[in-house]
Amino acid sequence: MRAVTIVDGDLRYQEHPDPEPGDNELLVSVEAAGINNADLMQRLGLYPAPPGAPPDIPGMELAGEVVATGRRTTRFSIGDRVMAVVGGGAQAELAVVDERCALPVPSALPWPDAGGFPEAFSTAYDALFTQCGLAFGERVLVTGAAGGVGTAGVQLSAATGARCVASVRHAHLRDSVAALGATAADPDAALGLGPFDVVLELVGASSLPGVLGAMALGGRIAVIGVGGGAQAGVDLLVVMQRRLRISGSTLRARSLVEKAVVATEVERHVVPLLEAGDVRVPLEATVPMDRAGEAYEGFRQGGKLGKIVLVPPR
Amino acid sequence: MRAVTIVDGDLRYQEHPDPEPGDNELLVSVEAAGINNADLMQRLGLYPAPPGAPPDIPGMELAGEVVATGRRTTRFSIGDRVMAVVGGGAQAELAVVDERCALPVPSALPWPDAGGFPEAFSTAYDALFTQCGLAFGERVLVTGAAGGVGTAGVQLSAATGARCVASVRHAHLRDSVAALGATAADPDAALGLGPFDVVLELVGASSLPGVLGAMALGGRIAVIGVGGGAQAGVDLLVVMQRRLRISGSTLRARSLVEKAVVATEVERHVVPLLEAGDVRVPLEATVPMDRAGEAYEGFRQGGKLGKIVLVPPR
Repeated sequence: MRAVTIVDGDLRYQEHPDPEPGDNELLVSVEAAGINNADLMQRLGLYPAPPGAPPDIPGMELAGEVVATGRRTTRFSIGDRVMAVVGGGAQAELAVVDERCALPVPSALPWPDAGGFPEAFSTAYDALFTQCGLAFGERVLVTGAAGGVGTAGVQLSAATGARCVASVRHAHLRDSVAALGATAADPDAALGLGPFDVVLELVGASSLPGVLGAMALGGRIAVIGVGGGAQAGVDLLVVMQRRLRISGSTLRARSLVEKAVVATEVERHVVPLLEAGDVRVPLEATVPMDRAGEAYEGFRQGGKLGKIVLVPPR
Repeated sequence: MRAVTIVDGDLRYQEHPDPEPGDNELLVSVEAAGINNADLMQRLGLYPAPPGAPPDIPGMELAGEVVATGRRTTRFSIGDRVMAVVGGGAQAELAVVDERCALPVPSALPWPDAGGFPEAFSTAYDALFTQCGLAFGERVLVTGAAGGVGTAGVQLSAATGARCVASVRHAHLRDSVAALGATAADPDAALGLGPFDVVLELVGASSLPGVLGAMALGGRIAVIGVGGGAQAGVDLLVVMQRRLRISGSTLRARSLVEKAVVATEVERHVVPLLEAGDVRVPLEATVPMDRAGEAYEGFRQGGKLGKIVLVPPR
């Protein structure tokens, strides 16, 4: 098979041996694989692939057709359409997926949408609901809301009856983000639309101090991104007086069992919304895998709406 | 009645009109009232009493005998021994207590112990169990463990089957803290005894960065004190990679209903331990109310074990 390959920090599209599915794994013919920030960090050598994932093939999410099944798989069969978060290796013609982390792809969903769904929606779901316990009627702020996780967070907030403010740095993206179910504003103006019960913090240290000042009593903040720096100043008196909770997480560092738990939750709560068209996967671009370098550069520059997804070259 | 009174930052013991119990309140003849950090801050003008509390009489906790009851009280009667967290006004001969926040005093418990129990044990209980979800077998760190909340936190951790490390700055207090059920060490050495699942952070900004580096995956930190500063540097990458949760709270800022919920929990889970002698209230000193200034100064200097409690002069 061919795969996007990190060679001394460059991206090439080159031959690898075909992966073989383990007992509980599916071999998937990849039809689409979203780009995530972790891929860019891995390319720079800052985020090694976890054990079990190919060290030089990036890609944390994929969608495709099952072409072979391990001896102990029970749910999916050859020909099924699946999508999943994986530890790595998704940006390739073939990839293995533990069956317990695989989600069925709704029949009407195009492949690129499916390939850009798992990571963003799993991350946003986990942060908003599992970490922050978002409930209907609450006020949500999503910082850096135009990207993949941001647009997922806005839509999930709206779908659950919360009221969402989207902080969007690029003015030209605000209308599109607002159309997903939020009041979109520039970062400073967005803080003035608080107080907020839940914040999906996708920017990091440059954003957090302002966010703390805009929190409601009992507010919860999930830190998911640090593009704006990791060394944050936190006023503990504000945290105490407003009884705030700040949590952080990454999906990739979790064990297989923990990822399977998230997948089960996402299948139960989010896939039905995707199937019904209540949430969708905004796609900035679909790029052939042999032009991955270009796609990564577009991702890095920002100013995009939603996901950039790689597809096998035809 | 006479009461400790803040007059231009000084403490006097002077006459006030007797308070009158509202519909749901008990009038209590105070036998003991613990000193807390909030009292010192109120004296300095940094922490005004909440609405409904006397503006110039400090004291957030008390124990005493019911001497009159409001028209709608249902549980306690004249002559009952009660203890409670209150919004203020506890350091007086008479104080009013909402019945829903009052706890029964175990029959064998001396008044000074009862007067030093509510605030410290409610705060430690709320932080460890309600905020951090401490479970048996987990590893707890209590920073600044020799004080009132610290000694309560150590004992509650031990009582619930957690393993506790106590960080104690003053060497002469370590054996006494260890005897409450912890491994006691100086702050740097304590960090080396991790990783920790739950941290009761009673020191604040000077302690938090080191604590972050000693956390286990999925760890929870409750920030309850900021004697070591409030402006903390937090490495968000560590928070994300270890999936940490940092929360803060104060008891005093809560609504009556919220305080009643905490009181119900403490009565169910902690008062039985107190009654059985499984936890106790370490008392550094018992001081007559007309010498409150001296007692506050002793509190401020630190280096004490447990509580300083005021009692009416005889």
